[in-house]
Amino acid sequence: MLKKVVMIGAIALVLLAGPLIGNALAAPVDVNAAISNAQTAADTAFMLISAALVLLMTPGLAFFYGGFVRSRNVLNTLMMSFVLMGVVGVTWILWGYSLAFAPGNPFIGGLQWLGLNGVGTELTDYLKGSNPPEILSYAPTIPHLAFMIYQAMFAIITPALISGAIAERMSFTAYSLFVLLWSTFVYSPLAHMVWGKGGFIGLAGGLGALDFAGGTVVHISSGVSALVAAIVLGPRKTYPDRLSPPHNVPFILLGAGLLWFGWFGFNAGSALASGSLATIAFVNTNTSAAAAALTWLILEKVLRGKPTAVGAATGAVAGLVGITPAAGFVTPLAAILIGSITTFVCFYAVSFKHKIQIDDALDTYPVHGVGGTVGAILTAVFATTAVNSAGKNGLLYGNPRELLVELAAIAIAYVVAGVGTFVILKLIDATVGLRVKEVAEMQGMDISEHGEEGYNEEFGDRISVSDK
Amino acid sequence: MLKKVVMIGAIALVLLAGPLIGNALAAPVDVNAAISNAQTAADTAFMLISAALVLLMTPGLAFFYGGFVRSRNVLNTLMMSFVLMGVVGVTWILWGYSLAFAPGNPFIGGLQWLGLNGVGTELTDYLKGSNPPEILSYAPTIPHLAFMIYQAMFAIITPALISGAIAERMSFTAYSLFVLLWSTFVYSPLAHMVWGKGGFIGLAGGLGALDFAGGTVVHISSGVSALVAAIVLGPRKTYPDRLSPPHNVPFILLGAGLLWFGWFGFNAGSALASGSLATIAFVNTNTSAAAAALTWLILEKVLRGKPTAVGAATGAVAGLVGITPAAGFVTPLAAILIGSITTFVCFYAVSFKHKIQIDDALDTYPVHGVGGTVGAILTAVFATTAVNSAGKNGLLYGNPRELLVELAAIAIAYVVAGVGTFVILKLIDATVGLRVKEVAEMQGMDISEHGEEGYNEEFGDRISVSDK
Amino acid sequence: MLKKVVMIGAIALVLLAGPLIGNALAAPVDVNAAISNAQTAADTAFMLISAALVLLMTPGLAFFYGGFVRSRNVLNTLMMSFVLMGVVGVTWILWGYSLAFAPGNPFIGGLQWLGLNGVGTELTDYLKGSNPPEILSYAPTIPHLAFMIYQAMFAIITPALISGAIAERMSFTAYSLFVLLWSTFVYSPLAHMVWGKGGFIGLAGGLGALDFAGGTVVHISSGVSALVAAIVLGPRKTYPDRLSPPHNVPFILLGAGLLWFGWFGFNAGSALASGSLATIAFVNTNTSAAAAALTWLILEKVLRGKPTAVGAATGAVAGLVGITPAAGFVTPLAAILIGSITTFVCFYAVSFKHKIQIDDALDTYPVHGVGGTVGAILTAVFATTAVNSAGKNGLLYGNPRELLVELAAIAIAYVVAGVGTFVILKLIDATVGLRVKEVAEMQGMDISEHGEEGYNEEFGDRISVSDK
Repeated sequence: MLKKVVMIGAIALVLLAGPLIGNALAAPVDVNAAISNAQTAADTAFMLISAALVLLMTPGLAFFYGGFVRSRNVLNTLMMSFVLMGVVGVTWILWGYSLAFAPGNPFIGGLQWLGLNGVGTELTDYLKGSNPPEILSYAPTIPHLAFMIYQAMFAIITPALISGAIAERMSFTAYSLFVLLWSTFVYSPLAHMVWGKGGFIGLAGGLGALDFAGGTVVHISSGVSALVAAIVLGPRKTYPDRLSPPHNVPFILLGAGLLWFGWFGFNAGSALASGSLATIAFVNTNTSAAAAALTWLILEKVLRGKPTAVGAATGAVAGLVGITPAAGFVTPLAAILIGSITTFVCFYAVSFKHKIQIDDALDTYPVHGVGGTVGAILTAVFATTAVNSAGKNGLLYGNPRELLVELAAIAIAYVVAGVGTFVILKLIDATVGLRVKEVAEMQGMDISEHGEEGYNEEFGDRISVSDK
Repeated sequence: MLKKVVMIGAIALVLLAGPLIGNALAAPVDVNAAISNAQTAADTAFMLISAALVLLMTPGLAFFYGGFVRSRNVLNTLMMSFVLMGVVGVTWILWGYSLAFAPGNPFIGGLQWLGLNGVGTELTDYLKGSNPPEILSYAPTIPHLAFMIYQAMFAIITPALISGAIAERMSFTAYSLFVLLWSTFVYSPLAHMVWGKGGFIGLAGGLGALDFAGGTVVHISSGVSALVAAIVLGPRKTYPDRLSPPHNVPFILLGAGLLWFGWFGFNAGSALASGSLATIAFVNTNTSAAAAALTWLILEKVLRGKPTAVGAATGAVAGLVGITPAAGFVTPLAAILIGSITTFVCFYAVSFKHKIQIDDALDTYPVHGVGGTVGAILTAVFATTAVNSAGKNGLLYGNPRELLVELAAIAIAYVVAGVGTFVILKLIDATVGLRVKEVAEMQGMDISEHGEEGYNEEFGDRISVSDK
Repeated sequence: MLKKVVMIGAIALVLLAGPLIGNALAAPVDVNAAISNAQTAADTAFMLISAALVLLMTPGLAFFYGGFVRSRNVLNTLMMSFVLMGVVGVTWILWGYSLAFAPGNPFIGGLQWLGLNGVGTELTDYLKGSNPPEILSYAPTIPHLAFMIYQAMFAIITPALISGAIAERMSFTAYSLFVLLWSTFVYSPLAHMVWGKGGFIGLAGGLGALDFAGGTVVHISSGVSALVAAIVLGPRKTYPDRLSPPHNVPFILLGAGLLWFGWFGFNAGSALASGSLATIAFVNTNTSAAAAALTWLILEKVLRGKPTAVGAATGAVAGLVGITPAAGFVTPLAAILIGSITTFVCFYAVSFKHKIQIDDALDTYPVHGVGGTVGAILTAVFATTAVNSAGKNGLLYGNPRELLVELAAIAIAYVVAGVGTFVILKLIDATVGLRVKEVAEMQGMDISEHGEEGYNEEFGDRISVSDK
């Protein structure tokens, strides 16, 4: 009987265990691969759409800036943004990405990813728990190429931000050369220092400065460069006595609307995956922009009597700039404060700029430079690991040291951007020259630099309705 | 021998069962968490991008409305939409979301989520099958904050819709105050009644009225409020004899294009997750808008001889309004009918409005109020549980009672919005006043309210080409 | 003792195996369904947002074209794009989709999906490994309706592309009739031949021509039709001596920006799922557009002295056209070459067009026809299965035969589009007529065809600021 029991048990065991063993050996592989695939599909969808949103910010910026200038310079101003989509769209593939994100030294990436060599669709299997290879750990759930193209969009818009400062006078050839060099010798190294593996400022083995989506890399760098460029180029011939009001304020609002929309991709996408962190960054982005626009309008109403459309647009951008370094590290209530404080400081910075007679034509430094600086400092104040365990606590959460780290990061960004811009501009000035001739400036950049005009009347052959 | 067999069997059992047990104890947890994570990543990606699309509708609406008015009022009209991104972007965080969606009474939400207190990135584990806590069951696969910010975008655009009725004459201060109060005392309660847990109109424990994406909450509420506001404010000084044609029809089309685009986020996103239901809502949205635009153009061609660009834009918006309450409950063929019928009724409502001499300047009531009403009624006609098992059948599918429920919901929305708007406007009228002075109205709202103008000629210092 | 061991073992076995068996029988079903659900959510999110992006391309195209024409024709030009959102938005549901994608003969789809009959939210379970039913295998991880609406967006924009060639002179009634017929009798069959199951040109059982996102189906077909239409209609009355410059170049850039943005949905979405292939197509799209815009600017600078805004926009579009058939088959470095070469050829094609005196008003054939042809040929040169194993190798990867296949596909597309367009236009000419009267053309299409004007001055009742 015992024998029978044992035999039946054994047979039962085999019958039961067989499928189980098969399952245990086979299923986990398939299931894990399938889950990994679904996770990758979700995160890649989010990151590609985010990249598209960030790309749209460049046309958005073009219209934001283009509305401010005189109509004789509208195309030149639009083109100073659009041309970046061409220039950096190519150079990022050829060398920019490698210099920014390839493993290198603390200051710049290596050359191993030139021409996207070795940059493909591989990703690390997030489920197997194996240590992801260092090389790919920027965003382990999306194809390496998706991370690359997302970063490309940041590299495209950042130099375009500078154009606001030197609008209406810089030769287009000089500008094109400038952004090519700036992108290579300022942007890529700075991105490497802050976000690259082993970069000496950022979280990944550096000083430990917090910059979620580009306070230092994008806004301080472009803002400081804008200031230096405005000084090196000198003011417009019409500055300061014969400045014209914006030729098309609706374009400014169109640009601001597209920037606000695209900024969701910029900040939420900087989580590098869909989910909770992206959600927090998204919420903070909208909240800070809202608080900032409102603050600017209230300041105008209280101090000057009338809230303006230009103010709403400028305030919103200031709030978006301010929240950029903080988006993934702070609470929504902190985002309200960050937006309000940043706007408050930028509001006075714009006024102050008019007093010191530097012709930063479209307020790039007061908004992006000052806004980025204030945002970076406030990040070190309001950051909390309760929001993002991969981040750090700031001043209010018992870590005053982070403020020092952030100030160091800001100082480094100022020096890199300021010195880099100065050297590049002096080089260009010594070779092809920086400015158009005075007569060309008075005639308009569209004609002198592009041989076309933004708005054209019809030839006089139209039959009017009354002629019918 | 038997002993050996047993021992071998036991060893084999341990060898085999060990990993199996390990797997059985460990794997399901990991696997389920990983799947849940992937699902959340997918749905969050969809909802965040949808939220971004809905945000873009507000600038879209700004340009849709801004194109219609005279150029002296373009900035004021744009700002009446843009300012909502500031006002409600902040108040929604502070109190609006809590009043709309926190558990409360049948008429309004509680105060427990003030300042987003307790609203974080938590979600219910959709795989474990446990009953999701009531508090979070709005959208169980996305972070609570993602649901919150998605709803914020609806709260932002809804009051902006009203601005079409009172364009070109309402003081900006009064308007800002109005939307602040309306958002708090009309929108939040109505959203709670229809979509909130325990709200007394909607599916979640109320009358059982169907409103997929905002027929009552968004379009009827704003449309009725627009009508009341137009009556309370009185007509423009130039009404009805000296009205100007739209100053910039391309802006109207730009706005319509952005609205159509953003409406995918509005309707498909109202599925609150990616997948089949979102797909149906997406398909119905495009189909209804298409049928509606076409219907308007055909009506114009047949009745007036020429199809207009303004008609195409207005028709498309009417079709988008009409499908909004129905998008997730009906078939694509029904969407063609809903789009056509809604447009047909709106077309005559616009004509009728001109006869009764109410100066709803940009046709907000005839398009949003009437369109929303027709759409809500047609939802109760065409809804079928074959499309959405969480919905209900309508008249055509054997449930005439749903029509009564829907009519009750419509009536309640009319009363809440109408009375609320009337009271708020009377309060403002009694304190800060509603309208600008007549001279300011004739001079233009941009100058009087904002101290700026939309389009500016250059100063006379330009050197013309022939002067070279 | 032995007995006890056996009994304990048996009890242990039951205790352990019970849950294991339960798990083994129950879990795999749930887990697989849950994974499938997550995968579907991710891919559907990507495809719906991609569809929204492609829809936005039609307003984008409207502004791209609308900026080029004289201001008296701006609304008519905008409407020639917008009306497609109405016409094809409806006909695609009723019959267009069935004719294009339902199983049929090698030349056209069947009628079984008329009115979306049988087209629902079903998808094949990608995990079970069962052969997906042929009928649904276009995109196995998304609802059938999601594939349908994504394809709808392609069907909407393609006829709109043609409008550039016949701008400023074709009657709007004739145009509406033309696009209705063209969409039905040219687009649907061609889409079936290239992308439909059993279509005789494409990969799914046909010649094996590669067309990732529409080089033949969209760009060659619309470009060739544009050329034929320009010839059949004859030139504008003002051609070639009294042509006006573009009335609003910023609109051209706005359109180009929206097209570039939307093209990510067009090309990356053509992977029909999120993930690696979509990423590659996305990267190639941006890279080719960038290289192309840059190439055009450099050609202008070198050959004509000044790079223009119109050139940047046209070059970018040429690069986007060129990469369309290749986006999912080539490397990013090849994308740089494809963008540059396509733009180079298009640049000369535009110049050549001016010499042969065909009034293709907005260069539709030189950009879309020539660009699509060059892109298709280059696809057969640069395609590699290392990028896409479901594709084929091209000339450079040892498969010269693919070039012949592609040339055959191009030739077929030329014939189908050219003959189809010719026949349709002759039929319309013989019935309702093609062109507006000369006086109407001189007066402007906006007045004659739509009874409205794009830009309107205010009536003279404005009180100027100095009158205060």
